[in-house]
Order: sequence, then C-alpha cells, then structure tokens
Amino acid sequence: MELTEILRHVDHTLLKQTATQDEIKALCADAVRFHTASVCVPPCYVRLAAGQCAGIVKVCTVVGFPNGNNTPAAKVFEAREALANGADEIDTVINVGWLKDKRYSDVLEELKELKAACGDKVLKVIIETCLLTEEEKIKMCEIVTASGADYIKTSTGFSTGGATFADVRLFREHVGPGVKIKAAGGIQSLEDAETFLQLGADRLGTSRIVALAKQAQA
Amino acid sequence: MELTEILRHVDHTLLKQTATQDEIKALCADAVRFHTASVCVPPCYVRLAAGQCAGIVKVCTVVGFPNGNNTPAAKVFEAREALANGADEIDTVINVGWLKDKRYSDVLEELKELKAACGDKVLKVIIETCLLTEEEKIKMCEIVTASGADYIKTSTGFSTGGATFADVRLFREHVGPGVKIKAAGGIQSLEDAETFLQLGADRLGTSRIVALAKQAQA
Repeated sequence: MELTEILRHVDHTLLKQTATQDEIKALCADAVRFHTASVCVPPCYVRLAAGQCAGIVKVCTVVGFPNGNNTPAAKVFEAREALANGADEIDTVINVGWLKDKRYSDVLEELKELKAACGDKVLKVIIETCLLTEEEKIKMCEIVTASGADYIKTSTGFSTGGATFADVRLFREHVGPGVKIKAAGGIQSLEDAETFLQLGADRLGTSRIVALAKQAQA
Repeated sequence: MELTEILRHVDHTLLKQTATQDEIKALCADAVRFHTASVCVPPCYVRLAAGQCAGIVKVCTVVGFPNGNNTPAAKVFEAREALANGADEIDTVINVGWLKDKRYSDVLEELKELKAACGDKVLKVIIETCLLTEEEKIKMCEIVTASGADYIKTSTGFSTGGATFADVRLFREHVGPGVKIKAAGGIQSLEDAETFLQLGADRLGTSRIVALAKQAQA
C-alpha cells in the first residue's frame, strides 16, 4: 500500500494535556501538507484548528474523553459546542461502567442523543477495548450499530492498551454494514497501519504515520 | 494522629472508568460508616451518591477531568449540572496547555467562571503537578488564590505521578491564607497521610485510608 494512501486514512492526533497553540498549528500544517483525513485535537483547540485547516482537512475532537463517565447531557453539550466551533467529527467514549452493569439501553440512548446532536457530521464511538470482555465488545458492536453512529473505535490512547488486530477483526465481524472502524492507540509502524486497513479499519488515530512520512521526505 | 482524625480529611474516591453502581454504593456506605469528609465519584454517579450519602457525607465530583483541555463553557456546564444533581464539591483540572503557553489570564478567567458557578459550594483546582515546572507550580498557586477557589489540589491520579511532600510544602508557601490544600494520587499508608496533613494538606484524595480502617476493624 502506498504511503499516500495510508495517510488518507489517518486522523493526525495530538490530545496530550500539555499541548500548546504552536504544537496544534504544527499538527494542522502537517495534516494539510500530507493530506490526512483529519486532525484530532482537544476541545479547547477546535476553533484554532478549524482556522488552520481552512476546510482542507477535517477537524475532529473528543467528547466525554477519555473516561466516558460524564453525564449524557454534558457529552451532548460538549459535542454541540465543538460543532459550533468548527468541528467536523466527534470522537466520544462510552460509559464503560454502565456497560459493566449491563445498562445497555442507557448506553444506547446516550449514543443516539449524541448522533442526533451531530446530525450529518461524523460520530465515532470509542469503546475502550482494553477494559472490556469479548462479550462486552460484541455487545458494543451491536449497540453502536443500533445508535446510528458512523464509526466504532478501539481506544482512547489513555487507558491500559491500544488497538489490536484481533479487535478490528472482531469489529468487522459484528458491526452492521453502515459502521466504519477506527483503530487508535499504539500504532507505531507502516506495516501495522497497513494491516489495520487490510483488516477493515477505515481510519487510524495516530501521530506516528505523519512522522514517518516526514522522515521519508527528509 | 488518630485514624478517626485522618479519616475526617479523606475524600473517599472512586473515579475509574469501569466503576459500577454497586461499587459506588459500597463506596458511599464506607464513607458514611467511617465519617470521611466526602465521597468523590464520576459525574454520572452524583445523583446516586447524593441519595446514598443522604447529607451525612458530602458528595464531590470532577469536571473537565482528567485532561482539563475542554472548553471553559463545557466545564461550567458540567459543574452546574453536578451541583443541580446534588454535588457539594467540584474538583476541576486546569488547562495545562494554556499554562505552558503562559496564557495566565485565560487560566484565571476559567477558574473565576467555575467559582462563580459553584457559589458557596467548594471548588478544588487540580494543577497536575507531575506535568509542571517549579515556576509553573508557583504561578498556579498565585492564580488559584486570585480565582477565589477553595482548594489547590496536586493531581488527578490519571497522569504520570501523584502527590509529593515537596509539592504540598511548596503550595503552603505560595497560596494565600484562604486557599486550602488537597493532596491526591498515590497516597498508600497512614504514615504518608499523616505527613501530608502535618505539612498543611486539609484533604486527601484516596481510597486507601478507608481500606486500612476496614482492615484495622476486622
């Protein structure tokens, strides 16, 4: 697979707490230069990123992130504000405690509310696979499909583990045809990126692929 | 120092993403039994905790947690909703990136808005010391003092490090007389707890002290 093809599937990501304005500007400049799918930035930088990306690259941000144990109303508020500030895509985190308690209708209802707030903008649902059993992962494939969300996503990058090939395979097997897959967390090499895409991922959350593209150009 | 005296300074805390209703109920029951200052729970469990604690123990929750890089409006929304749901105390996280960029007035303004939303309820400000330089920690002592917040707090427990004796000493030296100190993250023993209190901390964020009290009773 060509590097340029891989880059078209990358959400070029910088979510660390210490990120500065200059780091976000550099992230956006790299995303535009290398034609990634989007930049993924913290909520406080959505407006800055939207200005920097100027419609050339989509702006993605995170909601109820990374722990997901906020209230549904707070997540919806955060999503609406991000969209008003220029975000094109919203990555949210499920309420993992509710899933552990088998409160499936509460998990689903929250996702439906978020999708309603997003309208025709993209909603990605992080299920934080490293904290879930196989049964819970499959249940979430069903719930995300039922919610009308656009993507199921493996990981926040802030918990105990990232994307695995096995999880992407499992997603592919259990989500409906309308749901795409995003692998995120710990993607380190072009080989890994290519494998994730071949297994059925449509997006990759990482900063590493652009770094490799810069090295290749240098 | 008596164990009962130490317990009066404990925010009995359970913030992990996987926390279930039964775990929150058990946390509240233990807090009531051992007379801690508060329970500290995720936003989605504030109403449950308020019912369980029945006014006997304060209910504390977190806002913009743990990364702090949400928008000020989202943090204020989350704080207002938590208070409406029965929270007595709000622990928020500063925007660390803004601090790194020396956007001191933005950091201060956000904290003032949060304190205004809290009114006479308690606002604690987590500065996440493990990510800061000595100069930044001192600057935050000044900003937290100027904001009118009630507490400065060391750590979220979700970053690279927790409370240290040196940081509590530094806080004591640099915050105004109206600002109390909360040490959180990694407090493991009664000896540590006692030292933090003697150095000037007024609250301890931990689940360990109640666990030790239960062992002592058993």
